[in-house]
Amino acid sequence: MKQQHILLTDCQDSKGLVSSISTELYNREVNILSNREFVDPVTGHFFMRTAFEGSTDNSNLLAVLKNLLPENANVRLATKRKKRIVVLATKEPHCLGDLLIRTQYNDLNATIEAVIANRAALGPLVEKFKVPFHLVSHQNKDRVEHAMEISDIIDSYAPDYIVLAKYMRILPQEFVNKFNNKIINIHHSFLPAFIGASPYKQAYERGVKIIGATAHFVTGDLDMGPIIEQDVISTNHRMTSKLMAKAGMDVEKIVLARAVSKVVDDRVFVSGNKTVIFD
Amino acid sequence: MKQQHILLTDCQDSKGLVSSISTELYNREVNILSNREFVDPVTGHFFMRTAFEGSTDNSNLLAVLKNLLPENANVRLATKRKKRIVVLATKEPHCLGDLLIRTQYNDLNATIEAVIANRAALGPLVEKFKVPFHLVSHQNKDRVEHAMEISDIIDSYAPDYIVLAKYMRILPQEFVNKFNNKIINIHHSFLPAFIGASPYKQAYERGVKIIGATAHFVTGDLDMGPIIEQDVISTNHRMTSKLMAKAGMDVEKIVLARAVSKVVDDRVFVSGNKTVIFD
Amino acid sequence: MKQQHILLTDCQDSKGLVSSISTELYNREVNILSNREFVDPVTGHFFMRTAFEGSTDNSNLLAVLKNLLPENANVRLATKRKKRIVVLATKEPHCLGDLLIRTQYNDLNATIEAVIANRAALGPLVEKFKVPFHLVSHQNKDRVEHAMEISDIIDSYAPDYIVLAKYMRILPQEFVNKFNNKIINIHHSFLPAFIGASPYKQAYERGVKIIGATAHFVTGDLDMGPIIEQDVISTNHRMTSKLMAKAGMDVEKIVLARAVSKVVDDRVFVSGNKTVIFD
Amino acid sequence: MKQQHILLTDCQDSKGLVSSISTELYNREVNILSNREFVDPVTGHFFMRTAFEGSTDNSNLLAVLKNLLPENANVRLATKRKKRIVVLATKEPHCLGDLLIRTQYNDLNATIEAVIANRAALGPLVEKFKVPFHLVSHQNKDRVEHAMEISDIIDSYAPDYIVLAKYMRILPQEFVNKFNNKIINIHHSFLPAFIGASPYKQAYERGVKIIGATAHFVTGDLDMGPIIEQDVISTNHRMTSKLMAKAGMDVEKIVLARAVSKVVDDRVFVSGNKTVIFD
Repeated sequence: MKQQHILLTDCQDSKGLVSSISTELYNREVNILSNREFVDPVTGHFFMRTAFEGSTDNSNLLAVLKNLLPENANVRLATKRKKRIVVLATKEPHCLGDLLIRTQYNDLNATIEAVIANRAALGPLVEKFKVPFHLVSHQNKDRVEHAMEISDIIDSYAPDYIVLAKYMRILPQEFVNKFNNKIINIHHSFLPAFIGASPYKQAYERGVKIIGATAHFVTGDLDMGPIIEQDVISTNHRMTSKLMAKAGMDVEKIVLARAVSKVVDDRVFVSGNKTVIFD
Repeated sequence: MKQQHILLTDCQDSKGLVSSISTELYNREVNILSNREFVDPVTGHFFMRTAFEGSTDNSNLLAVLKNLLPENANVRLATKRKKRIVVLATKEPHCLGDLLIRTQYNDLNATIEAVIANRAALGPLVEKFKVPFHLVSHQNKDRVEHAMEISDIIDSYAPDYIVLAKYMRILPQEFVNKFNNKIINIHHSFLPAFIGASPYKQAYERGVKIIGATAHFVTGDLDMGPIIEQDVISTNHRMTSKLMAKAGMDVEKIVLARAVSKVVDDRVFVSGNKTVIFD
Repeated sequence: MKQQHILLTDCQDSKGLVSSISTELYNREVNILSNREFVDPVTGHFFMRTAFEGSTDNSNLLAVLKNLLPENANVRLATKRKKRIVVLATKEPHCLGDLLIRTQYNDLNATIEAVIANRAALGPLVEKFKVPFHLVSHQNKDRVEHAMEISDIIDSYAPDYIVLAKYMRILPQEFVNKFNNKIINIHHSFLPAFIGASPYKQAYERGVKIIGATAHFVTGDLDMGPIIEQDVISTNHRMTSKLMAKAGMDVEKIVLARAVSKVVDDRVFVSGNKTVIFD
Repeated sequence: MKQQHILLTDCQDSKGLVSSISTELYNREVNILSNREFVDPVTGHFFMRTAFEGSTDNSNLLAVLKNLLPENANVRLATKRKKRIVVLATKEPHCLGDLLIRTQYNDLNATIEAVIANRAALGPLVEKFKVPFHLVSHQNKDRVEHAMEISDIIDSYAPDYIVLAKYMRILPQEFVNKFNNKIINIHHSFLPAFIGASPYKQAYERGVKIIGATAHFVTGDLDMGPIIEQDVISTNHRMTSKLMAKAGMDVEKIVLARAVSKVVDDRVFVSGNKTVIFD
């Protein structure tokens, strides 16, 4: 199989962008596998994802495209490969276990380089899969100190993305800024409903008939970052908040895995506080 | 066909309630069609819905049951019949049109006695179905005055329920109190997300991947009453708030119709700010 | 607002198609609103839908594109306008009523020119909406004779599409051939499960936990034409086939309306026995 | 916590069944936690599931109830406990891995006593979880011989249920008869669509817009046993059968886990070729 590349372009829309980009790729005789574009009708911003096979002078391609495109265009060329992930977790095994099995059995285009947890409970699960496990207790540390300790460990693995698999601590602004658009979180509610702590308890108390989960990039505003994926399941009056939490685990792990899959396959643009996803 | 009755009981749970109620009905030799019960494990409240066929002395049944059951038990015996509905609307035809067709073609166990609107636009639609249409403009009236004018018209039809089919005005406390647990509203979001005005605009701005609709009883707190029914559909980055609103109309009308159907079939208990539904 | 056009191209894939088409449109200085393409990785067939605004010499555009594209390319230029529909029905009002309200209130980019039914029951509903209603009884006629009588009436309205809104008769091959890829049917099951008569009875007997509806183009093979849209709802042991049929009506009408909407918006390619849909 | 018991009754319906059963339990002063019943309106068969806490003379209870109930009534008293499961698999890890994590982390009221596979691939996964793994190759054996070899191993674990977690061999009638209503299979389609081999290939070729998975009890008729659980996800023209298979894995594992959960919680009655489920 030939090496695949993903060209990701976004810029202010103007006439002829698709023509310019596709003509440039055509002239280089690469084999275009798929081509998706979108112009936001409200902001007038243009997004394009082109997957192609075959070799070209990649740094030259980027330079030429930069020249063809409007000022301030973002052009990025990703080579299709397994992305490196570090997972942060606390004590719940369902999301983490699901990611471990998926990565180990090629159901996700990624490898888990390490798992970092603020509690010890998940160590044995992680070790089954021969993945390094780091316990970084938050006890007797302030929030920033704790996060920076984690940050140092993360840096030692040089991951492409950080996945919060039910990591139950709020990350400080410094940490979030450092890994801008690189941290994917799963929140156990259908955001923006039930922001913050105990969303199933909130859902139970409100008496909703549907519960959900939301995977999003982490920003400085709690549970307010760009949403990547959401899904829901039915609930009813027989479900206590504990039963909702149990039923919700399935949605959480599937939503998180779908979000990570889209991100590691270079299908997700972040645009302001939203995502544009070519799936 | 024999007349069907629905016995609705709720009270503080205690041992032997199912035994007492079912034995009493057994002794009266009525034919039990279905029997559903639920004890809320958090509040310890007992709910039971029994549908039966056959004649008994209904007022005596209620008296005997009251005597068997704990103090403050609610016991209600509903005879299966078409419920009388008054619909309030503003200018959108999709929910109203759907209800008109359903009631006229026996897909809902109800009749629409009248439609009251604060704008004229829906008059021609309502008149096609030979249903009285009342235009009660809100212009140059204060909120309470306007609502009381509507209330008087409603009273003249003595409805069982009032259905807000995209009625876009907030009803004052006096009105809501008068028709306690009798007013069913459709809100065009997946509550409690996007309370209040322009939920599709809010959804668009938040960049959610799923939108929904919620049917609920109206209380004094805006969009906070007991939820009867919710459903959702997928959305994506290509949908503007206008396209979301268009796609959402289908969910709104289906969710509202399902909620009304459950209420008019005497399947819904209101319990605090929640519903217990035997569907 | 400027006139919108939809350019629909499909042909055997070859390098440079997107470049050729988009460059040609760029040179004509039209304003491209959206551009979607797809290359089937199995068949190697290329599909492209381009919506643009602004005037160009349309017949010249088609000629030039034909010249640029591989032999046997299909190129079609549709002008955005309300499509003309003739509806065939039998006796169930839910799909027909839904289409009548949608078309009358601009929720579907189409007009219903006439309704033809083999029974009289729906006449009063249709007449409410001032749409011509033709009763063409099938009694004492053979299948072909009956269909050709309907065909003549259809011809008199010169519709773009024929929508079968729970029309419960099988159409003969001659009829289907005449209106190739122009007839949209709603089947009340999740095809290919429960082909043919009484799908809800079949679903009940099989004990499925989900039921559905399927909108598809009609071909000579019963319920086997290209699928446009499907959706499902949950069912359970409490639902008889009659209750399934009642619950299923909502899915049927929504699925049919969505399918018609996509077709009349020129979003649907038929490719062999499948559809490629840019929604 | 007191021991919980589940009383499962089914018999021909007659008047007074709920009264008899609930009065008998009331007199024994046990604490009823939940009570669900259903009378099939078509077959006139009665089903009841009662969960209660507290001690009674269980064998006496069964004898007394047998006496109270119509002839041929089935009465079963299950004590709430972890059920013993043997899993059969072939080479796909997603369902098996999901069950291993769930059982090990108490998300399923069961233990996996052993995994038996006809290929070696899953051995390392199973061994991570310290569960016995038996490779029973089917090569050079006839179907019955192979199945009986598996059957002997199963017997040595005396399981409550056998779960086929993508076990890709058809089991012979002798095997199925021996474990009547004890074998739960996951089929990777929305049955009864796409029975038999390669359902995703069939789905791809039919061009469906939704794919699904079905968990069912295994009977002698391939993919025709009583359905326990089904769910679906959307698909589209971009998905090859391989991509459908990948996307389908998530539905398969969730549907299988939900089905197993309901069975091991004694919520499922088998009635003819259907299930009655109190969830």
